[in-house]
Amino acid sequence: MAVYTTVSDDALASFLAEYDLGEAVAFKGIAEGVENSNYYLETTKGRYILTLFEKRANPEDLPYFIALKQHLSAQGFSCPLPVAAKDGKALRTLAGRPAVIVTFLQGLSPRVPNAKQCRELGAGLARLHQASANFDRVRENDLGPASWPKLWHGREQEAESLQPDLASKIDGDLTDIEAAKALSQDLPRGTIHADLFPDNAFFLGDQFTGAIDFYFACTDALAYDLAVCMNAWAFETDGAFNFSKGANLIAGYESVRPLEAAERNAFPLLCRGAALRFFLTRLVDWTETPQDALVKPKDPLDYAARLRFHRTAKSIDAYGA
Amino acid sequence: MAVYTTVSDDALASFLAEYDLGEAVAFKGIAEGVENSNYYLETTKGRYILTLFEKRANPEDLPYFIALKQHLSAQGFSCPLPVAAKDGKALRTLAGRPAVIVTFLQGLSPRVPNAKQCRELGAGLARLHQASANFDRVRENDLGPASWPKLWHGREQEAESLQPDLASKIDGDLTDIEAAKALSQDLPRGTIHADLFPDNAFFLGDQFTGAIDFYFACTDALAYDLAVCMNAWAFETDGAFNFSKGANLIAGYESVRPLEAAERNAFPLLCRGAALRFFLTRLVDWTETPQDALVKPKDPLDYAARLRFHRTAKSIDAYGA
Repeated sequence: MAVYTTVSDDALASFLAEYDLGEAVAFKGIAEGVENSNYYLETTKGRYILTLFEKRANPEDLPYFIALKQHLSAQGFSCPLPVAAKDGKALRTLAGRPAVIVTFLQGLSPRVPNAKQCRELGAGLARLHQASANFDRVRENDLGPASWPKLWHGREQEAESLQPDLASKIDGDLTDIEAAKALSQDLPRGTIHADLFPDNAFFLGDQFTGAIDFYFACTDALAYDLAVCMNAWAFETDGAFNFSKGANLIAGYESVRPLEAAERNAFPLLCRGAALRFFLTRLVDWTETPQDALVKPKDPLDYAARLRFHRTAKSIDAYGA
Repeated sequence: MAVYTTVSDDALASFLAEYDLGEAVAFKGIAEGVENSNYYLETTKGRYILTLFEKRANPEDLPYFIALKQHLSAQGFSCPLPVAAKDGKALRTLAGRPAVIVTFLQGLSPRVPNAKQCRELGAGLARLHQASANFDRVRENDLGPASWPKLWHGREQEAESLQPDLASKIDGDLTDIEAAKALSQDLPRGTIHADLFPDNAFFLGDQFTGAIDFYFACTDALAYDLAVCMNAWAFETDGAFNFSKGANLIAGYESVRPLEAAERNAFPLLCRGAALRFFLTRLVDWTETPQDALVKPKDPLDYAARLRFHRTAKSIDAYGA
């Protein structure tokens, strides 16, 4: 939770004058998100979220994210819609940072999703994949398998200090994933969210109402997106796998887009890769975040526990398919 | 900025079921306030703020604060109105903490208030004093002069380490204030906000639209409330006194409620006392806040600079009256 950049009254007023959104009547920093600064913005014309992109965001990627959200909205997939200013451009500058105003999306992020929500989320993810099928922009997944050895190298001791013998296990994961590279060659690819954790999904009751935070979206294997969700939605806070949630997630996804044989085959390894990706980025944050930082880094060991499960999974059946 | 307490979906739904407010359609932690957790809460019936009172809040004081806001609202002074649940009670329990839902107040808190806003704020403060004139509850100011020596004792070295010779100056302030005790005996008293900083005041443009965060409200000298505002509104971030802002603050106040002779006489000392109160509580926070805390403590030296100004002020004229 954080608001990194403060916006002065004058700066906000000048910024809003570039739009046809009326004047601000409420403006509150939101204690959500760890990458960027987000504000609840109410104007005389409606309610919005104002995002200021902080240092981690690559400015060159921002047009892709904005175009994707515009595309998904146009296809009927519910997500925050970037609002264009009077000159037609949605990506702007405020307080020295790239900034965008998006529409306000109703819904609540589940703290602990239930099985019904996992099913709805699975279906929602498949609809997202369908809606992005004809999105023609491409963005490499810069946190894909090629990045993992680079993230890992030099952090073996850190991992060992968190948990004895962890380093050799991570080495093994990387070796296994490298060896199985061929398995992922034939997977259907497309635009994926790549970070659809519960705090990026909105619900009204058990009904999925949309997704936010597309700032890891990229072109990759569609089933990898489901593997990310398996890690994020079907494990309890104590690290235990909830078979019922996993089964619902897959069933929900397949109710819209049935998985192909190659995707089913690759699924345990995709889950292991997804867990590794979050383990590694969390390990980096864990070791590099200053003690006095506003945002507490998340515990990498949550994903060490998931990796233990994935290593033993023989097939997609282990996940409830 | 902080949200200390997380509210689960089930807990929120059960909590809302006690009210006649419909169901939640949005729920976002707000990165504002340093004492309590605040959430933006949108339901099918309207928009609200949900506050969870954290450990600093004394549960015994909460009915006073709630009654005060209900009283002020009924008198036409704009502030968040505590919403009663179906059983008629506004003060409830959520996630193990005292909790209240209040109405959402439109307006923006000025980051750097201008002179016009200072004038409007002064008038607003006087209207608050008028609106609370017939509020019959009493709450001692537990951060009044009697508390200052207790806050100070034992922290002299901390002050010295922040600024050489600061300790003897603070000793002098306490002596002078104690010696002038008689001066404050005849001041008109009533219910004061006691913490009306810019982040607790809302504006649309330059128009004051209301006040929030009444959790230091108490029964004390009305002019002391204006002295708190003088410290909070009329000094620039570099510590310089802005005469024009001070003059506007007083003129705005007096446009609604002219100060009495005793209040004008006591004003420099009241300003010095108010600065001392914030210096001391900041000094406590500065020395007691853990390095890794979510909320950065505010710099006590901001108020050491104000104290320097107040020590030289011969009369209320120095503040622009």
